[in-house]
Amino acid sequence: MSVPGVKLVTIGERLLVDNDRVAARNHRRLSEAGVLTVNIMAAPGAGKTSFIVRTLEALRGRARAGVIEGDIAGSIDAETVLAAGAHGAVQINTGGNCHLEADMVERALHDLDLDGLDVLFVENVGNLVCPTQWALGEHVKLCLVGAAEGDDKPVKYPPMFAASDAIVLNKTDLIDLVDFDRAFFTSSVRALNPAAPIFDVSCRSGAGIPVWADWLLAQRQGVSGRDSARLGMAPIGGT
Amino acid sequence: MSVPGVKLVTIGERLLVDNDRVAARNHRRLSEAGVLTVNIMAAPGAGKTSFIVRTLEALRGRARAGVIEGDIAGSIDAETVLAAGAHGAVQINTGGNCHLEADMVERALHDLDLDGLDVLFVENVGNLVCPTQWALGEHVKLCLVGAAEGDDKPVKYPPMFAASDAIVLNKTDLIDLVDFDRAFFTSSVRALNPAAPIFDVSCRSGAGIPVWADWLLAQRQGVSGRDSARLGMAPIGGT
Repeated sequence: MSVPGVKLVTIGERLLVDNDRVAARNHRRLSEAGVLTVNIMAAPGAGKTSFIVRTLEALRGRARAGVIEGDIAGSIDAETVLAAGAHGAVQINTGGNCHLEADMVERALHDLDLDGLDVLFVENVGNLVCPTQWALGEHVKLCLVGAAEGDDKPVKYPPMFAASDAIVLNKTDLIDLVDFDRAFFTSSVRALNPAAPIFDVSCRSGAGIPVWADWLLAQRQGVSGRDSARLGMAPIGGT
Repeated sequence: MSVPGVKLVTIGERLLVDNDRVAARNHRRLSEAGVLTVNIMAAPGAGKTSFIVRTLEALRGRARAGVIEGDIAGSIDAETVLAAGAHGAVQINTGGNCHLEADMVERALHDLDLDGLDVLFVENVGNLVCPTQWALGEHVKLCLVGAAEGDDKPVKYPPMFAASDAIVLNKTDLIDLVDFDRAFFTSSVRALNPAAPIFDVSCRSGAGIPVWADWLLAQRQGVSGRDSARLGMAPIGGT
């Protein structure tokens, strides 16, 4: 290529530094409002929206949750989560962009009533690679993987699993049908990430959702009100 | 962001133009050697490697196939396809890159004996977004989607389905377990792409692989020997 690789890296790094600055601003704003924010990252078809819907059901009467939906195109997910009881939902269409960036989330925050929320789910674009590098201002980076994708995803996409504060294995109802080696999956995750909790769920049956929802609400304790100043940009998941 | 969006687009376009130049060079080289080349694009866990393995089995004694494996990390896929009878395999590790680019394939071609091949499979990094824009020099762009990913993938990731010359629906053995609406899937694909054939396969059972393999070999007729000059960069799939 005639454009030297080094130059590209420099520009890429500058974009990431700019992104981190906006992400820090989002993080402060969300912490001050006491809104625990979860960046949900996964491959296409892992079940991100179904997972949010199930979690909204589990949080009903316990916490008010909003949703930011990131998609290449369409608004079907925002409609789905509103119907499932989200206290506000904003759809971001990224055009061709394969991941959300902090400034997109910043704009979306203008359209949400943060004082009316306890939790905010940000559904990233389906992609196990690029979202890893782009902080959004979240408190918890969550990686969702479907059992039908295979037990080798941590080996194939190590940065995503290393960077996550919580890992959710979805579609456990299919586990026996797809030769998924649960022990291999766990040991692969642990080689990359010793601390993050791994939640087994089935969004089809609802199995495992209560345990995850309890953990999520426990994380919220660290974000609300006056504690927020202590948080900085450090992720609170897994601690 | 302080870096104007316009500037980023310009650099991105320049990179794509450079990439297209290398892709055209790869395409000429592969056409002159009579090697039908298939760029296999899919989300993580759709079953790209299993699909290549099943196709290698179906081509045994009928065509000699090589494989270029693109992954963020690891070499397990190259070992797998060699064990399944590939006539040569090259592993590309992209580091953090979420898609293959033409110059990576150009380097990999140095390590393959093209005169000994009829077909070349290029397994892209698992990603339904970015690979769409990056031509590699292939004759056929193939999009593989697993039924467990849901019937809404064409709606969510339209550029990939619009750009493909052939679409493979894998994991059809799971179709009744995951509320996959086959008619909705087909109509969504057709709205984006009126011509590309859609192949239903199960890499678990092998169902549907012979039909796909016959189609693939028929495509090869257009690539071999003296006909190659007529091909240029036009995709031959779906014709």
